Amino acid sequence: MEQTLQQQFDFLLEIDKMKTILRRNVISDESRRENDAEHSWHMAMTAIVLAQYAAREVDMLRVLKMALVHDLVEVYAGDTFCYDTAGYTDKAQREQSAASKLFAMLPTGQGDELRRLWEEFEAEQTPEALFACACDRIQPFLLNYNTHGHTWKLGGIHQDQVYARMAQVKAGAPKIYAAIDDMIQQCVRDGLILE
Amino acid sequence: MEQTLQQQFDFLLEIDKMKTILRRNVISDESRRENDAEHSWHMAMTAIVLAQYAAREVDMLRVLKMALVHDLVEVYAGDTFCYDTAGYTDKAQREQSAASKLFAMLPTGQGDELRRLWEEFEAEQTPEALFACACDRIQPFLLNYNTHGHTWKLGGIHQDQVYARMAQVKAGAPKIYAAIDDMIQQCVRDGLILE
Repeated sequence: MEQTLQQQFDFLLEIDKMKTILRRNVISDESRRENDAEHSWHMAMTAIVLAQYAAREVDMLRVLKMALVHDLVEVYAGDTFCYDTAGYTDKAQREQSAASKLFAMLPTGQGDELRRLWEEFEAEQTPEALFACACDRIQPFLLNYNTHGHTWKLGGIHQDQVYARMAQVKAGAPKIYAAIDDMIQQCVRDGLILE
Repeated sequence: MEQTLQQQFDFLLEIDKMKTILRRNVISDESRRENDAEHSWHMAMTAIVLAQYAAREVDMLRVLKMALVHDLVEVYAGDTFCYDTAGYTDKAQREQSAASKLFAMLPTGQGDELRRLWEEFEAEQTPEALFACACDRIQPFLLNYNTHGHTWKLGGIHQDQVYARMAQVKAGAPKIYAAIDDMIQQCVRDGLILE
């Protein structure tokens, strides 16, 4: 087999590990935790369905590619719980090392393209990154909202922490923010999110 | 909340069921069966990584959207094992009913767009559908190849059945077909696929 294709097949097999990286939130039937592959698919679907709310005009191809690759480095770096302050201190360093290892599996130009998409997502500056980040927040928010605040209760999470996570929705999909705000307030009233 | 957004949130929650629709093949560590959400993400990644091999020039945005939505109807119709001849007799009818129910959850224009993408994928005529179908075959092929022929052994599958499934690779990504052919022949020699 040609070396380029062999590298690409090896990479596709390696990223299968996304299916074993567990996140803190559960799927909608509350039977088990969600994994990174499922989250990435659901986040991409969120981007497709909510495209009309993007803050600025976006290139949807780049948004979808970003959604699909944004968590790939976690095959080596693992998932860091979004409310884990300690875990966040070395998250960037762990993920940069993981990126160097993972994207080097691909032919050079292709590995570079995917790494740049991931770095663009992480930087949260371009219209595409801002909208993708908003979707990365909305997807687990909807799951938590519909699973009796599973992750919020688990972590004893306060509303200021949730609002801090939802800043990306305000920036990337501002027309949705009012609805999210209402939903947060309802969860506070129901005791699912602490005041 | 505005009705349009409520419909979209409801749809995004409904399709979470993709994470509970199990396919026959297992993930690469052989610990469990793969589900539709994971398969759809992995198929979309296959399309990104193997884009250079598409038989004709393709609009990658449409290819990725197709990959992400191509199995959505299975939230109601279930997964039909690809080598289950009996299951295939009413597959189209079950899936059309499922599509009518599922896509009606979305605002009209948006539901129609996603349904048309799914129907285009199923018809296997456009360059985008042909390439997406090739990726839909390559993704589980790589998993089966790397899990000691799990699904082939399970079903007592013969090489003519595998070749029939791989016709879409020949059509949609012909430059990859020689490599797939070699891999099938190796699996036949190893007894993972019957002659």
